[in-house]
Amino acid sequence: MNPSPDQSSSRLFTFCGGHQGRWRVQHQHVVAGEPLPVASFLDIVVHPATPPDSVWTLRGITSNERYSTHDEKAVLKATQEGLDRPVAVHGALIPIKKNRDWWLLSQDERRKIFEEQSHHIQIGLDYLPAIARRLHHCRDLGPDEPFDFLTWFEFAPEHEGAFNAMLARLRASVEWRYVSREIDIRVSRPTV
Amino acid sequence: MNPSPDQSSSRLFTFCGGHQGRWRVQHQHVVAGEPLPVASFLDIVVHPATPPDSVWTLRGITSNERYSTHDEKAVLKATQEGLDRPVAVHGALIPIKKNRDWWLLSQDERRKIFEEQSHHIQIGLDYLPAIARRLHHCRDLGPDEPFDFLTWFEFAPEHEGAFNAMLARLRASVEWRYVSREIDIRVSRPTV
Repeated sequence: MNPSPDQSSSRLFTFCGGHQGRWRVQHQHVVAGEPLPVASFLDIVVHPATPPDSVWTLRGITSNERYSTHDEKAVLKATQEGLDRPVAVHGALIPIKKNRDWWLLSQDERRKIFEEQSHHIQIGLDYLPAIARRLHHCRDLGPDEPFDFLTWFEFAPEHEGAFNAMLARLRASVEWRYVSREIDIRVSRPTV
Repeated sequence: MNPSPDQSSSRLFTFCGGHQGRWRVQHQHVVAGEPLPVASFLDIVVHPATPPDSVWTLRGITSNERYSTHDEKAVLKATQEGLDRPVAVHGALIPIKKNRDWWLLSQDERRKIFEEQSHHIQIGLDYLPAIARRLHHCRDLGPDEPFDFLTWFEFAPEHEGAFNAMLARLRASVEWRYVSREIDIRVSRPTV
């Protein structure tokens, strides 16, 4: 990330897949739905910024939590680590779109599927603090966004196996029956 | 509203206060925080559209429900009426911003204040089907939106008193302690 000091508090981030960037794409795997064009590099820029010459750009905004309770939020906050750790030279960008059925559910129905049935928060907690993450929302940026969420992960190379195990558990959950599009983009950067 | 047929499913609406429009502004009252410049007319256009020459424009997007349960949603759906009823020649646009404390609360804390303490949904139900409404979210359209929500109401002239009573009950609630900016813009349109 290259935020200039006056942009560092912005909530809006643009992920640019292209021919240059801080992160080199190791592989880009279509889990569900339409593919994205293949990019060699990934850069994350604070919006507004002029995106570099890109194969694709995806925008997302950080926001308030939608499902976590006071206690869950407190545990997350006490356990998780921030982005940009020197050891975290592996990363993953996972854009996800959920289907119409999901968005028509009421808040309590979504919460029940998300946590009581799928244990989304609990599964994430099992991999803290090794896996750092930042969730970006896209669905309410505008009516035509290609994805609903962009989740960005950072971890040390030795935790890639644990990261894969976490994704396997989430993808086997009831919540994932509502995922209509998902791309798994793995990246790495040179050790400083 | 002037949606062309191919835009009618868009979730993004722009409210334009200016010198022309379908709705004539009757009064514009600052309930809390910074005022908006005074406009004589209000128009509601489906985005993307070229806004008319405006004094201000406010954008909002309809989205999934954030707090209502399955049962509450079912009652709302069965009771509420749509916009654009011929008798509903009075309207109100109420842009609201909530403070940082609100957005730092967890989902269960916000739900508790919203409904268990403030009875927001129940109060709204008391005025159905007379008062029709559409809620638009702004906060996640971008990092610099002036408001978090735009609520648009339509009702017949004889229900203006009930509408005022509803607002008074909401503004006396615990939830409203978190409202840092609110403008109450009342409009009317000619009877067809």
